[in-house]
Amino acid sequence: MSWLQREILLAPRSRGFHLVTSELVTELPELRRLRVGILHLLIRHTSASLALNENASQDVRRDFESWFDRAVPERAAFWTHTLEGDDDMPAHVKAALIGPSLTLPVSAGRLALGTWQGIYLCEHRDRGGPRSVFATAWGED
Amino acid sequence: MSWLQREILLAPRSRGFHLVTSELVTELPELRRLRVGILHLLIRHTSASLALNENASQDVRRDFESWFDRAVPERAAFWTHTLEGDDDMPAHVKAALIGPSLTLPVSAGRLALGTWQGIYLCEHRDRGGPRSVFATAWGED
Amino acid sequence: MSWLQREILLAPRSRGFHLVTSELVTELPELRRLRVGILHLLIRHTSASLALNENASQDVRRDFESWFDRAVPERAAFWTHTLEGDDDMPAHVKAALIGPSLTLPVSAGRLALGTWQGIYLCEHRDRGGPRSVFATAWGED
Repeated sequence: MSWLQREILLAPRSRGFHLVTSELVTELPELRRLRVGILHLLIRHTSASLALNENASQDVRRDFESWFDRAVPERAAFWTHTLEGDDDMPAHVKAALIGPSLTLPVSAGRLALGTWQGIYLCEHRDRGGPRSVFATAWGED
Repeated sequence: MSWLQREILLAPRSRGFHLVTSELVTELPELRRLRVGILHLLIRHTSASLALNENASQDVRRDFESWFDRAVPERAAFWTHTLEGDDDMPAHVKAALIGPSLTLPVSAGRLALGTWQGIYLCEHRDRGGPRSVFATAWGED
Repeated sequence: MSWLQREILLAPRSRGFHLVTSELVTELPELRRLRVGILHLLIRHTSASLALNENASQDVRRDFESWFDRAVPERAAFWTHTLEGDDDMPAHVKAALIGPSLTLPVSAGRLALGTWQGIYLCEHRDRGGPRSVFATAWGED
């Protein structure tokens, strides 16, 4: 069994859904040595999340934002946690709906994803800044 | 430590929520040998998902579909990714809300689920076809 | 590799979102011995869930409940699974949206969470009773 654990800082992104598969995998060259294993990624924030979804079309990522902005609206009358800005409380709910982590299989040195699957950084704040992703991988060489 | 990694093809299902616990476990007989471990399942598609929910009532699964179809409607004015059909973009959002993977404990050779928990294949397309689930299990004999 | 597997019973909570990080970690003293590893938590129910979100403000947890109660309303005309109470079917949907499990990194004997991240028990029933969380941890001493 070999283990790898490392913090990866993702560059700041605008509010929305961003494909970051390459940016993450580049920081984890040791995955190539795993014959069989798992990669776990945790975003260490409560107003951003990680998703696995369509990696080809920018339209899909824009439509994600449209849906989430309507489903979890800013300035709704029932929000009470409003001190940190109109985008803050909706960001927490969106983050919980999508979730903070991904657990992904590694096979023959590569992520064993579907053809159309890529990793999204889901940035729910207007100005979220850099985001910390804590990566843990384990498996057999 | 022993590892198991295998692709399982689930038969095509109609749009909706389907209980597939037995279909999956049957394809993983080696789980019986694990004293303690984990089973990870990843659906390798972006318009279907895996959930863990009520395993007894067909009504529950039908109501899931009713809620998701209302919460993520087809033909909404804000969708721009519409080339692949009215059911495509809502399927991506539903898949992200539920998530593509399950991580489940194995204890004494069995999935250590609650009495009422079963694995759902959540098929969000009208005609999704067969679905690939990539299974990885690890643990101690 | 060392493994730990244990059921933890969480005390009954009122409907809503509750911070339970300390209650869980106290039951898992062996985590302190793990140099690198993973903690997996599964709630073994279909009407409650586990989330990782803001650990400081009670307002955030109250607003979570407000949003979920509006997004998944009781007594909607389309529910057919109503025999177990008005709160039952919405609880199943909320549980699927948030998810039943958390997978968390352990580093130098501690959960490697973000500063503001805490574990929520999301109780979606009016009277859910005690809740079983099945914990599995693995890693290197």
